[in-house]
Amino acid sequence: MSIAFSLPELAAVVDARAVEGGRTAPIRGIASLAEAGPDDLSFLGNPKYAPEVATSRAGVILVPADFAGAPVAGQVFLRVDKPSYALALVCSVLEARLWPKPPAGRHPSAVVAAGAQVDPSASLGPLCVIDEGAIIGAGAVLDALCHVGREAVVGPDCWLKSGVKVGDFCVLGARCRLQPGAVVGADGFGFEPVAGEIRRIPQVGVVVLEDDVEVGANTTLDRARFSRTVVGRGTKIDNLVQIAHNVRIGRQCLITAQVGIAGSTTLGDHCVLGGQAGVAGHLTLGDRVRLGAQTGLFEDVPADGFMNGTPAVPFGLERRLVVLARRLPELFKKVDSLAASLDSVARPST
Amino acid sequence: MSIAFSLPELAAVVDARAVEGGRTAPIRGIASLAEAGPDDLSFLGNPKYAPEVATSRAGVILVPADFAGAPVAGQVFLRVDKPSYALALVCSVLEARLWPKPPAGRHPSAVVAAGAQVDPSASLGPLCVIDEGAIIGAGAVLDALCHVGREAVVGPDCWLKSGVKVGDFCVLGARCRLQPGAVVGADGFGFEPVAGEIRRIPQVGVVVLEDDVEVGANTTLDRARFSRTVVGRGTKIDNLVQIAHNVRIGRQCLITAQVGIAGSTTLGDHCVLGGQAGVAGHLTLGDRVRLGAQTGLFEDVPADGFMNGTPAVPFGLERRLVVLARRLPELFKKVDSLAASLDSVARPST
Amino acid sequence: MSIAFSLPELAAVVDARAVEGGRTAPIRGIASLAEAGPDDLSFLGNPKYAPEVATSRAGVILVPADFAGAPVAGQVFLRVDKPSYALALVCSVLEARLWPKPPAGRHPSAVVAAGAQVDPSASLGPLCVIDEGAIIGAGAVLDALCHVGREAVVGPDCWLKSGVKVGDFCVLGARCRLQPGAVVGADGFGFEPVAGEIRRIPQVGVVVLEDDVEVGANTTLDRARFSRTVVGRGTKIDNLVQIAHNVRIGRQCLITAQVGIAGSTTLGDHCVLGGQAGVAGHLTLGDRVRLGAQTGLFEDVPADGFMNGTPAVPFGLERRLVVLARRLPELFKKVDSLAASLDSVARPST
Repeated sequence: MSIAFSLPELAAVVDARAVEGGRTAPIRGIASLAEAGPDDLSFLGNPKYAPEVATSRAGVILVPADFAGAPVAGQVFLRVDKPSYALALVCSVLEARLWPKPPAGRHPSAVVAAGAQVDPSASLGPLCVIDEGAIIGAGAVLDALCHVGREAVVGPDCWLKSGVKVGDFCVLGARCRLQPGAVVGADGFGFEPVAGEIRRIPQVGVVVLEDDVEVGANTTLDRARFSRTVVGRGTKIDNLVQIAHNVRIGRQCLITAQVGIAGSTTLGDHCVLGGQAGVAGHLTLGDRVRLGAQTGLFEDVPADGFMNGTPAVPFGLERRLVVLARRLPELFKKVDSLAASLDSVARPST
Repeated sequence: MSIAFSLPELAAVVDARAVEGGRTAPIRGIASLAEAGPDDLSFLGNPKYAPEVATSRAGVILVPADFAGAPVAGQVFLRVDKPSYALALVCSVLEARLWPKPPAGRHPSAVVAAGAQVDPSASLGPLCVIDEGAIIGAGAVLDALCHVGREAVVGPDCWLKSGVKVGDFCVLGARCRLQPGAVVGADGFGFEPVAGEIRRIPQVGVVVLEDDVEVGANTTLDRARFSRTVVGRGTKIDNLVQIAHNVRIGRQCLITAQVGIAGSTTLGDHCVLGGQAGVAGHLTLGDRVRLGAQTGLFEDVPADGFMNGTPAVPFGLERRLVVLARRLPELFKKVDSLAASLDSVARPST
Repeated sequence: MSIAFSLPELAAVVDARAVEGGRTAPIRGIASLAEAGPDDLSFLGNPKYAPEVATSRAGVILVPADFAGAPVAGQVFLRVDKPSYALALVCSVLEARLWPKPPAGRHPSAVVAAGAQVDPSASLGPLCVIDEGAIIGAGAVLDALCHVGREAVVGPDCWLKSGVKVGDFCVLGARCRLQPGAVVGADGFGFEPVAGEIRRIPQVGVVVLEDDVEVGANTTLDRARFSRTVVGRGTKIDNLVQIAHNVRIGRQCLITAQVGIAGSTTLGDHCVLGGQAGVAGHLTLGDRVRLGAQTGLFEDVPADGFMNGTPAVPFGLERRLVVLARRLPELFKKVDSLAASLDSVARPST
């Protein structure tokens, strides 16, 4: 991983107000104050770490413009308005260098069906499989070993990491990013008992990801029983999440790792679901609903609701119940003591 | 996704008792009453949605034979005995059209070891890998990028979706369906501490899926430490489920998404496990056991048991405990008030 | 799966103190006493199963040296010091036979970039993809359909099962074993709200697996926002686990299936996390910390801590709270009864 930023380059990227100290060797990594070495860039993002600056081995440190210290030997200070934001600027430049868009074209090992439409500006990595009737939009990038099914659509400027599978007839909008192993369009889990056996219910719908959706590694999204499973524009889904058939997720939601959403549930916009939360089927969650990590939700939630616990209750109540539950030993003792006192009051002279 | 049903076709498929209204344009989709457009089929599956019929934009609506209304302009009614069942018939026909069995044969890019036995009627998709000694049964279908390991067996008429991995020596019965990314036969998680290090315990058993088993996307089933991890006939497993080594699951069970079953646990027939439930190792669950979503089970359950909560207790008790736990604030207050009253009774004249 | 051990071979492998009985047919499987057939090896690993020995159909049984019984017709006893250990020896020999290291070299279908360095002693299976600048160490084995990204390093004697993805720039130490579908180096889940939209935060760090790390099937490990996500030497991770960006796991830990660890959390050495446990972000867990299955941890834990429940509390307290919570119905009744008694005491003569 060949990073190399010269000091002037860095100062320009972060729009430094002042450069204190100098060095000729390039910066080759980024690390926290405590872990950085002489070739690393570090930053003071939170005032509580200020004491670590003087002892940090970092070669270059982003500090607030009004930071009271001065660089010690081996350090260079870049004074900036907001060190965290400055660091993000460096990371953005770094990302563009480390992951330049691959050149357009098809790796010769890719298997593209005769009737697929691959835009000439798209990039197909080694051993990708594009089935009949699929459409790969302008500027889309597919890393190695991806599979796009029949008549599926990968929108312009999507980036599919290695091993992503997009099922037949599913549709991805523009600029979606899918992490390795993500599965879009597995069959929904629909079965019904018939005479003691379990019979499969056909799942003939699709999955639609609107523009700017992100899907995490090995996450699974099931095709609808009929019509569509939908993820709204700009929603970000983390790793190992399960989205069942006919779920509809609104726009700009954050769905954290290992969340599961059961069939036909609808989420509004700007919802935030904590890790490992589970949502039962056929529910409706309004806009901006939040669920704490590991929450198990079994009822509808109106807009702006914040639920926690299993079964979920409003966050404030859940916090209170947790505190009281921890006081159960005390409560049991108190009740025993009350019973004894009452006994002595009721029968004082026996 | 080119669906096209003419009205007479639809009427025949659903065995309509009466057709009210007419249209020449084909039906091209299926949607709920509220969401359907003029080219969609919809249905009145639940009487509570009856008011939506008159305002639905659906081109054709499946209604109960005795439904009291009449089609408005642009609507056609197909009167049927059971609209939900009629819809399922349409979906079945649709599925057969959208996913016809691929033609027999091997895609030229498939890599088949010299000693593998692939039935001539089987279909191997692009970039499949079939290892030495593997057997692919008659009529089996493997989509793109599947891997079948050494001496593994894929039974007749199985359908492996893209990227499925079947490990060495594992055995799939007839008509199993595996969704994309499913892993059958990873090593069991067996380790033991030896002198402060963790040493791996060899896992030399296999996984056996009996006939008609369904495995969800990115679900993982581990090979036994020795002998077999078994999934019984007709059992259906959803996405992202973990089945550990030496687990034995009975017949006709439903294992919902993100469930985890730890090593050597045995399930009877017709069990139903709710989403994200976890079952500890070395347990025995009888026939027809049910676990609620997110349940954490740490003890055996006899036949017909229904457990809920973490740690799991019988469902009825769990429901009662949840109600009482929510009344803790009230209980704490009541005890405080009792203590105060008792104090005043005990010392009335001070 | 062609196992075949002759009796003398078995006796030698387990270093038998005595062989009682004889047979010429080879042993072809391993099974428990109850399930074994005439061609199976079984073992008495736990005294409580002693009554099953006499009725077992196993052809050969490993029994403790001082076991009081004698083989019945069709049985051979191999008397050994520790039957469980003896069985492990057999399994080790068996594993080496069933999974011999594949020969060095590249399958002709593998796609290796011109600038990748693949050690001549490494083995690349069918349809592997090795990108520019990647390094594959001596003796490493990659099964079918693996992908190693740009400038990534796979250490000597690693074994990557089929479909493993190692992201660009990530580093695996020596002897790591990755089960099918594991993803090392997906993007971290970093987003920030900007003017009502969610903007992606670049993730420019890597994942480092130290020596002897095991990663389960379809498990996902995210690259750091910057610097490194680290898994310490000898740590074993089960299936479907989520390790978020910038997590640091110590040495010799056991992370059971479906665990999730959120971003920037640090674990010490020798930690053990039960199945489906979740750990919030930015926490610090000391050495030897244990978490029960399904635990939801939201606070730091010092060395040797054992936490359970959601939200997690020390194990002993959690056990006590569970017992008391189950006595809530009794407590509510008792308080009602106290209230009634107090009422009669306070107003005795009304």
